[in-house]
Amino acid sequence: MIATPSSGAVLRIRVIAPSGPVPADRLNKGLRTLTAHVAPGAHVEVSAQVRQRWGYFAGPDNTRRAAIEAAFNDGEADIIWCARGGYGASRLLDGLDGAGLDHGGKLLVGFSDVTALLAWAWSRCEIVGLHGPVLTQLGGLHPADVEQVSAWIRGDVPPPAAADEGTVVRGGTVEGRMLGGNLEVLRSLLGTKYWPSLAGCVLALEEVGERPYRIDRALTQLISSGALRGVAAIVIGQLTACGEPHYESDSPTAADVVLERLEPLGVPVVTGFGFGHDPTRHFAWPYGGRVRLRADDATLEFLEPVR
Amino acid sequence: MIATPSSGAVLRIRVIAPSGPVPADRLNKGLRTLTAHVAPGAHVEVSAQVRQRWGYFAGPDNTRRAAIEAAFNDGEADIIWCARGGYGASRLLDGLDGAGLDHGGKLLVGFSDVTALLAWAWSRCEIVGLHGPVLTQLGGLHPADVEQVSAWIRGDVPPPAAADEGTVVRGGTVEGRMLGGNLEVLRSLLGTKYWPSLAGCVLALEEVGERPYRIDRALTQLISSGALRGVAAIVIGQLTACGEPHYESDSPTAADVVLERLEPLGVPVVTGFGFGHDPTRHFAWPYGGRVRLRADDATLEFLEPVR
Repeated sequence: MIATPSSGAVLRIRVIAPSGPVPADRLNKGLRTLTAHVAPGAHVEVSAQVRQRWGYFAGPDNTRRAAIEAAFNDGEADIIWCARGGYGASRLLDGLDGAGLDHGGKLLVGFSDVTALLAWAWSRCEIVGLHGPVLTQLGGLHPADVEQVSAWIRGDVPPPAAADEGTVVRGGTVEGRMLGGNLEVLRSLLGTKYWPSLAGCVLALEEVGERPYRIDRALTQLISSGALRGVAAIVIGQLTACGEPHYESDSPTAADVVLERLEPLGVPVVTGFGFGHDPTRHFAWPYGGRVRLRADDATLEFLEPVR
Repeated sequence: MIATPSSGAVLRIRVIAPSGPVPADRLNKGLRTLTAHVAPGAHVEVSAQVRQRWGYFAGPDNTRRAAIEAAFNDGEADIIWCARGGYGASRLLDGLDGAGLDHGGKLLVGFSDVTALLAWAWSRCEIVGLHGPVLTQLGGLHPADVEQVSAWIRGDVPPPAAADEGTVVRGGTVEGRMLGGNLEVLRSLLGTKYWPSLAGCVLALEEVGERPYRIDRALTQLISSGALRGVAAIVIGQLTACGEPHYESDSPTAADVVLERLEPLGVPVVTGFGFGHDPTRHFAWPYGGRVRLRADDATLEFLEPVR
């Protein structure tokens, strides 16, 4: 799939699937949006592995790991775009670590289960990634978010992102590197060498399909372990399908739980940001890149490009 | 509720609910089984807190923590029996730690979310507990398991427990202290000071309501973190309702995942033991107490009483 570049060198994108199997229709729809709107003129190469299915993985561990290594070692690749999340990236990290990958200047894009790869890249190699839509999400994405991720890909710095209907637990303006990702995937790195140090950082969290008590348990662990010590601020994205199926009038919601657990940390916390598992709205943010949270305005400013 | 003791001093049991709210009917049924069959003649005191409901907890944190402290500091109590699991014990540990509790000779009984308390008691205070049926489970328990937990409570050592229909991954005979509990609750202690060191231990795990990929993620984290380093053997209990709802022919089962992840550890692993969330079958085992696994016979021998 080669389109004519609009100007300058051709942008080269490699698509990999480090986690779950990828539905063909959503992959193809995403590829069309990618080449038509996100990165017109880009050269896109889809790893053969992306079309594999092996239980709940897009191919065996060795195959998925080889796809990651090949993408990083491809001297001509600019962007490594993950096709989807699911589960499976965390199984690959021990084998990737110390594999002598050539990461130079490549941008890894994805979220959800890809949190594990973004955290590995930052914590082990200090590579800034892009926490943003997976390829299968691009086809259904709101045009504003297509443009937003396109700006990052072009090497621009997108305009600030404002929370939609959030809660500001504590005001203030904080600058720091942005880290985090999917709460459950991030938590699954606790105790491993892939856990990114959060001191001084703006921690961003989103979640999907976890009942409130499970979000409570995850945050309680992060707090009790000391992993949140020194966090400068926290921004909460979408909490998609995190309702309580056995709801009763005194059941706390996922948002209640997040506020109850995080408020005592004494740092700015703002909820309601538009990133996560919503199928249509998802702005991208720099994983390891510098941002400024203006909590009083519930606004996040991006301070540097990711490539 | 005072029954006449059959012999010797009256056994004193305090019932607490450190986690979720307790259904009254199952509590009452469990109390009847307790006093009629498990500990005839015992004096049973049910903390008022056990009948509270506060969201998904049996009362606020302070109330539940106070019930735990009161039970441990009750100089006449012999047994602290947890009414049920759910979620909530892990929220209490930071406050319990260093509270100067008088644990002397008291036996804590429970499982599931109570794993957090059992692990805290062992890792912080070297108190051997009893990983066994919660009170609300007693009413529906098989008579053989009622007798088995009764033996522990009397101060006896029950007969060996054999796996029902398990798989033996690697044979051999191993002695060690038995630790573990509910996989997801145990995992939620990783990175905290309540994580029990597993070196030289027989690790016992059970799970309920987790899809295979989630069990995979939990075990992957335990392995990648080094938390299983030095484990002497692993016994797997019930994997209740851990099927894949979106099952396809190549979907691994929970049992498949457990074997695939644990086999490479190179220690004896035996699955199919009768402890966990099955409503009728649940043998109790000593949390922190010494056992002998005879893997070739899929049999677990208990080597010392818990009180």
